[in-house]
Order: sequence, then structure tokens, then C-alpha cells
Amino acid sequence: MTTETAVFGVLTPEELLKYWQGHRRLTRRTIDAFPEEKLFNFSVGGMRPFSELAWEFLLMATPIVDGVASGNWAESAAKKPTTKAGLLALWDEQTKELDAKFPKIPAQRFSELDKAFGQWPATGIATIQYAIDNEIHHRGQGFVYLRALGLEPPKFWEDR
Amino acid sequence: MTTETAVFGVLTPEELLKYWQGHRRLTRRTIDAFPEEKLFNFSVGGMRPFSELAWEFLLMATPIVDGVASGNWAESAAKKPTTKAGLLALWDEQTKELDAKFPKIPAQRFSELDKAFGQWPATGIATIQYAIDNEIHHRGQGFVYLRALGLEPPKFWEDR
Repeated sequence: MTTETAVFGVLTPEELLKYWQGHRRLTRRTIDAFPEEKLFNFSVGGMRPFSELAWEFLLMATPIVDGVASGNWAESAAKKPTTKAGLLALWDEQTKELDAKFPKIPAQRFSELDKAFGQWPATGIATIQYAIDNEIHHRGQGFVYLRALGLEPPKFWEDR
Repeated sequence: MTTETAVFGVLTPEELLKYWQGHRRLTRRTIDAFPEEKLFNFSVGGMRPFSELAWEFLLMATPIVDGVASGNWAESAAKKPTTKAGLLALWDEQTKELDAKFPKIPAQRFSELDKAFGQWPATGIATIQYAIDNEIHHRGQGFVYLRALGLEPPKFWEDR
């Protein structure tokens, strides 16, 4: 019983992946809601346009899963897309990669302390949570950009 | 072994509370970064001012923890603050309440399916995640409001 209590967790790795992919579907719809030109050029208050924020998410997701899984931290080799279609294609590619790679993270790596990209000390789970939180945070900003453009953002609660 | 494998989780309830309170500290700093008048009157793109978003977080946090813990879903009895000091005082009160109430959530309630506030069917953990995600999402929007006002938002990664 004590061992079981010690490992009690509120979320399994499978549930965490499902939750992350749900958020990624919402982010995909947010990218898609921008007119091509505004995706790359529009922002509010001198911030980055939404294409740059989405690019940041892509630089974090699979490289972080690779790093947490293996302990090897490598920057993404992907080339920064310059069109909405290119961004969405890379997004879909990464969706498949995440589904393939995430379940292979060894269980103990979630709680192990490591240095993400050789720079940020954190447990595997904390680094993954950071990637997801960062995506939710900046996607919320994309919603403001859409509203400022007079466009309706996707529904926050749907298909997650 | 099979039992242990079955309950393997990436996050304990204690870690989830710590993570949530870390986000709540950042939200508190975000509220505090607004000049009094702008907190209640300023927004971008016809959205709600940040005071209204912060009020929404307060209506969700402890009432959700109470509901997940007990199965009884009651709306908050708090009165909507009309000043920044009032909002922050209520925030601090809820911080203590969360610390006291969250550890008393019975373990099985995280995975049990319930209907939050009699309306939204979800497991306890999913309802709690929704409250946190909603806070991250709208706080990111508060960051845009601050930038649009020419003000520096708090650091996203600090003291979490």
C-alpha cells in the first residue's frame, strides 16, 4: 500500500499526451483562423506575430520530448515556414511524431532532474508542462490579435 | 507490479497544487502590474478588462476544488471587488483556502467522472486542468493589454 500511495498520480503519461494534443488541435485552428498576411505581419503592442509564436511551439514540442526521453538535447533541424500552408504541414508532421515518440519516454524520466537544452534545470514533467503552458499563454495572445482584427477566435473548450 | 504500473502518474496531487499556486502567483503579479483604472476599464478588441478575467479565475478555483473534493457544486458567495486592493485581498484569501482544501481531495475523485457545477461532465483532474488552462489563457491576454498600454508584463518563467 505505501508503494502505491507513493506513486499515486493524477495524470498518466497517456492522459498527458491526449491533453497536449487537444491543446495542439486548438492551436492549429488558431493558426488557421488568421488570414495569410496577418499571420506573418500583424500583432498588438509591438509583440511577435502569431506565426513566430507558433514557430516557437514547434521548436519546443518534439525537441523537448526527444530530450526528456533520451537525455540528449538537440535543437530542431526544421526550416522556418514562410506560408500558412507550410506552417500547418509542419504542425501535422509534428503531431504524428509526438504520438510516436511520447509513449516511448521511460517512466522514470518524468521525475528525473535534467537540464533542458543544456540550460534550464527541471524535471522531465516540468519541462513538458512548460512547453504546454507556453503554448496556452501565447495562443491566448493570438486570440487577442484575432479579436483586434475583428475575427472570431476558435472555441476554447471544443475538441480537446 | 501491475497495480503500481496501473497507477503510474506523471504528477502527484502535491505537485499539481504547487504548479497551480505558481501560476496563481504569476497571475497576482499580472493583476498588480495594471494601473487601477486600466485594470477595470482597459481592453483590446472589445474583450473583457483584466479585472473581469481575474474575477472569473476566483469564481472557478476554490469552488472547483470544493466540488471535486465533495461532489457538491456551489457557486462562489464572494462579492465582486471594485478596487485592485480588494481583488488582491480576495486573491490572497483564496490562496490560503486552496492550500487548506486541495490536500483533502480524496485520491479517487481525480479520476471520477462528475458534472462540474451540474453542467460540464468531466473527471476531477480534467476540471481542475480546465481552471488552470483558462487562467493561463486569459492571463496571456492580460500580457497583451499591458504591452498595448506600454507596460512591461511580469516574467512568465519566474517564481513558479
